[in-house]
Amino acid sequence: MVRWSPDARGRLERAAFELFAEQGFSATTVPEITARAGLTTRTFFRYFADKREVFFAGDEIPELARRVLAAAPPGLDPVVLLEQGLRQVAADRFDGHRDEVRLRRDLVDADPSLRERDAQKRADLVAVLRPGLQARGVDALEAALLAELTVVVLHVAMRAWLDDPAEESMSDVVSRCFTRLRGVLEVGAARVF
Amino acid sequence: MVRWSPDARGRLERAAFELFAEQGFSATTVPEITARAGLTTRTFFRYFADKREVFFAGDEIPELARRVLAAAPPGLDPVVLLEQGLRQVAADRFDGHRDEVRLRRDLVDADPSLRERDAQKRADLVAVLRPGLQARGVDALEAALLAELTVVVLHVAMRAWLDDPAEESMSDVVSRCFTRLRGVLEVGAARVF
Repeated sequence: MVRWSPDARGRLERAAFELFAEQGFSATTVPEITARAGLTTRTFFRYFADKREVFFAGDEIPELARRVLAAAPPGLDPVVLLEQGLRQVAADRFDGHRDEVRLRRDLVDADPSLRERDAQKRADLVAVLRPGLQARGVDALEAALLAELTVVVLHVAMRAWLDDPAEESMSDVVSRCFTRLRGVLEVGAARVF
Repeated sequence: MVRWSPDARGRLERAAFELFAEQGFSATTVPEITARAGLTTRTFFRYFADKREVFFAGDEIPELARRVLAAAPPGLDPVVLLEQGLRQVAADRFDGHRDEVRLRRDLVDADPSLRERDAQKRADLVAVLRPGLQARGVDALEAALLAELTVVVLHVAMRAWLDDPAEESMSDVVSRCFTRLRGVLEVGAARVF
């Protein structure tokens, strides 16, 4: 009798994504996932509260953001820090995984319960970045704007990267977003006066 | 027999908000709203599909955004246009209504179904701004960034305005957000090199 399954968590995640890819998120059941992984539903629920949790397993961007904020030198400019942090997230989590990220994006777009959880994930990242920036001396208004802006750039850059046939790296798309924001805001300022 | 009730819609909205303020959103029922308004539930459902719809009635910011985009001169810089548009929304819909806006904010924060709909409203505004900007010649990446940025500024400015004891106008908070974003992004650019 096998009491311990090596890499049960990883096998469940892989089985779940195979099934989500084949038949969609809502049509896939937990027993189907465990059957495909060769494990029991009991094992499934040892690792995950529900199907949505498998979907978002490994998506620890808020945790990564917390570490980036903690490790950055105290005097580092906040925008430089955010751009570098996003480039790092892009390089670690997105570049080289285009097909998987695209599948996730398509599944989220197609399912209201995943969209809701995805929106919550964005809010979670804002909730990490905002106090983290304030702790570095950024005032409340600027911290709120920069935290939201960072999540916007992550989201817009990911979609632009997925839609880009040129296969530019996502970390470069992130930098392009910051450059474009700078450019367009400067032009706006020049024309106000 | 009264077949037509003058301003039934307005009476239902006012009754609903009185009750939401007194006892919260989830505890308030449609029969309570109609009793308070002196109207029938049948009349209620002539105007609103459900309780959430009364809550968001009159919140036609995407519609306003569509009109602002259509009315702006073709050559107007997109950021100037967005800042002016947000100042107009702030002046028309927020300034002078601080208590009502604060009540709405508190009710949304307290109720998951209102938060979900509020997030959808933000997505609706992005969905109007993005193609509207592209129709004015802004490219896809910049249109996506600016549409999301505008919704972020509206959201952050509203919360900053509500929390500000100095009672600055929300249209001035909107401009302050754009000024701060410009400033912090410029500093960021200067320090990258």
